[in-house]
Amino acid sequence: MKDIELIQGIDISTEKEDLICYSYDASYAKGNIPEAVAWPKNTQEIARTVRWASNRGLKIIPRGAGTGMAGGAVPVNSNSVLISLERMKQILEINPKNFTATVEPGVINGDFQNELLIYELFYPPDPASLDYCTIGGNVATNAGGPRAIKYGVTRNYVMEVEVVLPNGDIVSFGGKTFKRVVGYELKELFIGSEGTLGIISKITVRVLPQPEEIVTLLISFKELDSAGQFIPKIIGTGIIPRTLEFLDSACLKLIEDNEKIGLPENTEALLLVEVDGELTSIKRQAEKIVDIARKFKGETKVAVDYYSRENLWRARRSISACIMKMKDKEKINIDISVPVENLSMALVKLRELSIASDIQVICFGHAGDGNIHVNILVNRDDEENRKKGFELAKKIFELTVSLGGAISGEHGIGITKKPYIDIQLSKKNIELMKAVKRVFDPKEIMNPGKIF
Amino acid sequence: MKDIELIQGIDISTEKEDLICYSYDASYAKGNIPEAVAWPKNTQEIARTVRWASNRGLKIIPRGAGTGMAGGAVPVNSNSVLISLERMKQILEINPKNFTATVEPGVINGDFQNELLIYELFYPPDPASLDYCTIGGNVATNAGGPRAIKYGVTRNYVMEVEVVLPNGDIVSFGGKTFKRVVGYELKELFIGSEGTLGIISKITVRVLPQPEEIVTLLISFKELDSAGQFIPKIIGTGIIPRTLEFLDSACLKLIEDNEKIGLPENTEALLLVEVDGELTSIKRQAEKIVDIARKFKGETKVAVDYYSRENLWRARRSISACIMKMKDKEKINIDISVPVENLSMALVKLRELSIASDIQVICFGHAGDGNIHVNILVNRDDEENRKKGFELAKKIFELTVSLGGAISGEHGIGITKKPYIDIQLSKKNIELMKAVKRVFDPKEIMNPGKIF
Repeated sequence: MKDIELIQGIDISTEKEDLICYSYDASYAKGNIPEAVAWPKNTQEIARTVRWASNRGLKIIPRGAGTGMAGGAVPVNSNSVLISLERMKQILEINPKNFTATVEPGVINGDFQNELLIYELFYPPDPASLDYCTIGGNVATNAGGPRAIKYGVTRNYVMEVEVVLPNGDIVSFGGKTFKRVVGYELKELFIGSEGTLGIISKITVRVLPQPEEIVTLLISFKELDSAGQFIPKIIGTGIIPRTLEFLDSACLKLIEDNEKIGLPENTEALLLVEVDGELTSIKRQAEKIVDIARKFKGETKVAVDYYSRENLWRARRSISACIMKMKDKEKINIDISVPVENLSMALVKLRELSIASDIQVICFGHAGDGNIHVNILVNRDDEENRKKGFELAKKIFELTVSLGGAISGEHGIGITKKPYIDIQLSKKNIELMKAVKRVFDPKEIMNPGKIF
Repeated sequence: MKDIELIQGIDISTEKEDLICYSYDASYAKGNIPEAVAWPKNTQEIARTVRWASNRGLKIIPRGAGTGMAGGAVPVNSNSVLISLERMKQILEINPKNFTATVEPGVINGDFQNELLIYELFYPPDPASLDYCTIGGNVATNAGGPRAIKYGVTRNYVMEVEVVLPNGDIVSFGGKTFKRVVGYELKELFIGSEGTLGIISKITVRVLPQPEEIVTLLISFKELDSAGQFIPKIIGTGIIPRTLEFLDSACLKLIEDNEKIGLPENTEALLLVEVDGELTSIKRQAEKIVDIARKFKGETKVAVDYYSRENLWRARRSISACIMKMKDKEKINIDISVPVENLSMALVKLRELSIASDIQVICFGHAGDGNIHVNILVNRDDEENRKKGFELAKKIFELTVSLGGAISGEHGIGITKKPYIDIQLSKKNIELMKAVKRVFDPKEIMNPGKIF
């Protein structure tokens, strides 16, 4: 890398120790080591780095915190520059009068949430990795989280993005008003684009007033199917819970082994249900939920204080880490999403597929919106078993699409789901996506090897 | 039109009486008479008509009910075929378990709402023209309505669209799950595309459970500025009303002259505020709103029953029609949208601009989300006065953009705002939009002369 001096002033490294750290993410995707890693500090530095890379025929891989579950930030080519946004972590504005906030892409979701608390505001998208993941990464993957059932996903909150295109041009899309119809809403293309169209350098999101109160319920079921039937029943009453999280028995055992927080025993499915709003109103909603649960033989415990609620959430968020700790197992994690009415059937069929393949799967996820995280556990360093795992993954994707679902709910396609995308999308649809990419990235240098 | 026989089986007309009816919409845009009007009955018939038109080098203009306010469905070229979707009005599915519904594009918004009532569901987007406008047209313009402040706009509800592309290909974008990240979400491009990319032939939307109860408040202010300051104060309390409609004094006089429903007198600004949810909760919210209103010298009346509420809404929805009835005036209607914090300033500056231009403007709109319908009244058949009206419009657009706003909140750009689009969008942004259009419509036959 003899040209480094040409982008002086920008923090850049070609040291192997640095490069290795940026060759993987939280998925099982195996990447290549890039030629350089750059840490721009502002939009202009991103633009200069991008132009420099483009002129040299280098590929560009943008990266937030590397918590991605699909390999979206993993370099495929070695003739590439990885652009890490982690030094662009300023919250530029929180505007409580307009219910908007503007941040740099490297702002960590949890830090942003904490800052908003001061203004009695909150930002609904809250992926389990919120203590590490960045808002830029969240936008690039259209991240969701437990609260999506009531509040929607990242797409529903992004109002404006500033983007550095692969030729170094800086363009803004969208605006700061809740209503807007001014030509094609190109910002929507960047949401979920996994860094393949340009680099998001600034983001304005909508934020909401904090709810008055939250009630947390832990409901355990002895039968998987009862839990699956219970879920649409709640929503059918008109109650839209803040969260409706699902954990299967394998998941519960794993958490209990690692965290020992005293979860209910003899349970096939555990639901973590929260309602929020005005106190009188949510008390009544909670009572209704407990009543309905009883009809499906679900037993309810109420998390009475802030501490016990946080304890539950800590346990819930630790699942991915717990699975990673299993020394003899490697996980193939996929995050399918099905229409809520098909959730029960999906869970039952998933179990059947797991038994038929003789491969363990651990399921958890956001049951209220039909988003299930399926963790396929294969034996480490056992190529034959790994192959069987991927065959099972393919069957699960086919099942998902046959149930009207999506092969990724909130993680994105990245590298790991790319081989399966044609199960979901028609050839024509993929052709159109590729043509749209060429509009923004005619030299095809932005994050190659991802999505399609 | 000698080739008509080639699309036999499809209802098509070249009769002048038919053609004239399809050469205008609800805007002041003057169009051309198309060569033919077709009324396809299903997706295949749309595709056949589109291929037929494309092969003959004819332009294609899709049209819902023609209630558009920006000329989006008005033919610019005479060598064109207008495709009316009004005979595709089947509600294909209402799925209360999955909270989705699938409709043909010609389904009338109000009919759809009525059908949903049976299932105790509702579809939030409710433009004032809901008794006439179609869901297809709503998607093409990303329509909003009074409930957008709490529930968002059409974009927030469209889950999947089936589209006939200009070459006759039929493609679906999006899906039936609430979470989905599978490549670029191309459906978003069609929302608000005003018929310039393809013809939407089927739509799946998200629907919500009906709220338990609604309370309607009518709050009158003697000062425009007090009303403007009151609005952010309400939302600042954490209450998000279902609607927060604004009418200025000129507007009130017009309604009273036409409808005589006994609106408050000596009022500079009237707000129509609704809260919905559980009864106990919204009663408390309503009380809080009345308290805050009092601090800003606003006087509140409560609409006690269904009849008086509907009466108010009928009056509110009649404004556009009332303005159209003014025999000596022609209206140049624009629907700007500003960040809520700038609403008060926008209203004051609008009045200043009106006085300085000596042109009357009537303002009403969706104050909660910053969307104001500005009706510029010019003397009919007075070219000089009309010119002054358009100069005022331009100044209002410049004011809007300087306040961080959008030149169209929910009507779209169509023909009428096309001359002003560069006030809003950068050259680069427009170039990218044009390039995206060419991906879907390389022969540039879809609804030419619109947006840019």
